[in-house]
Amino acid sequence: MTDRLTAQFAFLDEIDRLKGVLRATPIGDNSRRENSAEHSWHIAMYALVLADQAGPDVRIDRVLQMLLLHDIVEIDAGDMPIHLAHDAAEQAAKEEAAADRLFGLLPAEQAAMFRALWDEFEAAESPDAVFAKSLDRVQPLLQNHASGGGSWIDYDVTLDQIDSRVGAKVKRGAPNVWDFVRARVAPFFDRSA
Amino acid sequence: MTDRLTAQFAFLDEIDRLKGVLRATPIGDNSRRENSAEHSWHIAMYALVLADQAGPDVRIDRVLQMLLLHDIVEIDAGDMPIHLAHDAAEQAAKEEAAADRLFGLLPAEQAAMFRALWDEFEAAESPDAVFAKSLDRVQPLLQNHASGGGSWIDYDVTLDQIDSRVGAKVKRGAPNVWDFVRARVAPFFDRSA
Repeated sequence: MTDRLTAQFAFLDEIDRLKGVLRATPIGDNSRRENSAEHSWHIAMYALVLADQAGPDVRIDRVLQMLLLHDIVEIDAGDMPIHLAHDAAEQAAKEEAAADRLFGLLPAEQAAMFRALWDEFEAAESPDAVFAKSLDRVQPLLQNHASGGGSWIDYDVTLDQIDSRVGAKVKRGAPNVWDFVRARVAPFFDRSA
Repeated sequence: MTDRLTAQFAFLDEIDRLKGVLRATPIGDNSRRENSAEHSWHIAMYALVLADQAGPDVRIDRVLQMLLLHDIVEIDAGDMPIHLAHDAAEQAAKEEAAADRLFGLLPAEQAAMFRALWDEFEAAESPDAVFAKSLDRVQPLLQNHASGGGSWIDYDVTLDQIDSRVGAKVKRGAPNVWDFVRARVAPFFDRSA
């Protein structure tokens, strides 16, 4: 029992560092950048609130679990802003190594369970993962919109880029949410054109 | 549909402010105080990892939901440190008013569901709520320990106070976790005695 708790607390202590991983998007009042721990909390709340937007095959309890742990790899691999050009294969390799180390702190069967959930999220194929990805993609739009532009300004983003980089993925899992959010954010890009 | 999403996003936008509510405990590297949004994420991860410490009547999916939303009232009512003397009835009244306003942003049936979960957590009687409270109480000890004392120093806390204010509640829901964590943190109080 003590060995098991020692391993579990080694993991719980280590993931505290996610609070220090900064994302490209600001918090709503634009006072600072959002960190990946509070982002993970916020999108878990998105899943609870928007559960009725999920398809009939989606199990919200599994979506919650995926969203809570999906960014933990960033402790080692960092957050890669969606609008920043980068080597996707290199970033994927970093994240795989991070998953090995971080989930590997847990007792073996828990490490395997968490890793399987993360792999499923990354693959973005199962109904649960597709819905979870929709929420992870759409929340930064609301953060940028609330804070006056955020990473849209930093990376000189266009509405076409939003449609291709974000919209296509949000639509797959939550089409009504996409229609709603796109209508809200589109005027920002008209103004800045 | 649009009215419903308008209400849901009014709530999801508003709860962003939980990222600005600071707690008495620091993050692990002691660089700053923890906010209530990232704390909520961390204890949700505690629930996932320590699920096997819960009694047989505990449903972890409900525990996760409670932990994710339990601090939202702090947006209006603020965080009240456990070791700070305060008027409990006054704080409870503030939190009730906060719950009315904040959950009231949601569509009516969701507002009622979230409010019922929060009331259940606050009552600390159901097996789910007792386990959830254990995790909410025990995490600050690990944060204070990791960061060199944190709010134990600020509020001049003794091990007896830890036992009475924290231990009694953690033991109710997660007795093995309490034994493990108490053994880890006790030496801090020997040193500072």
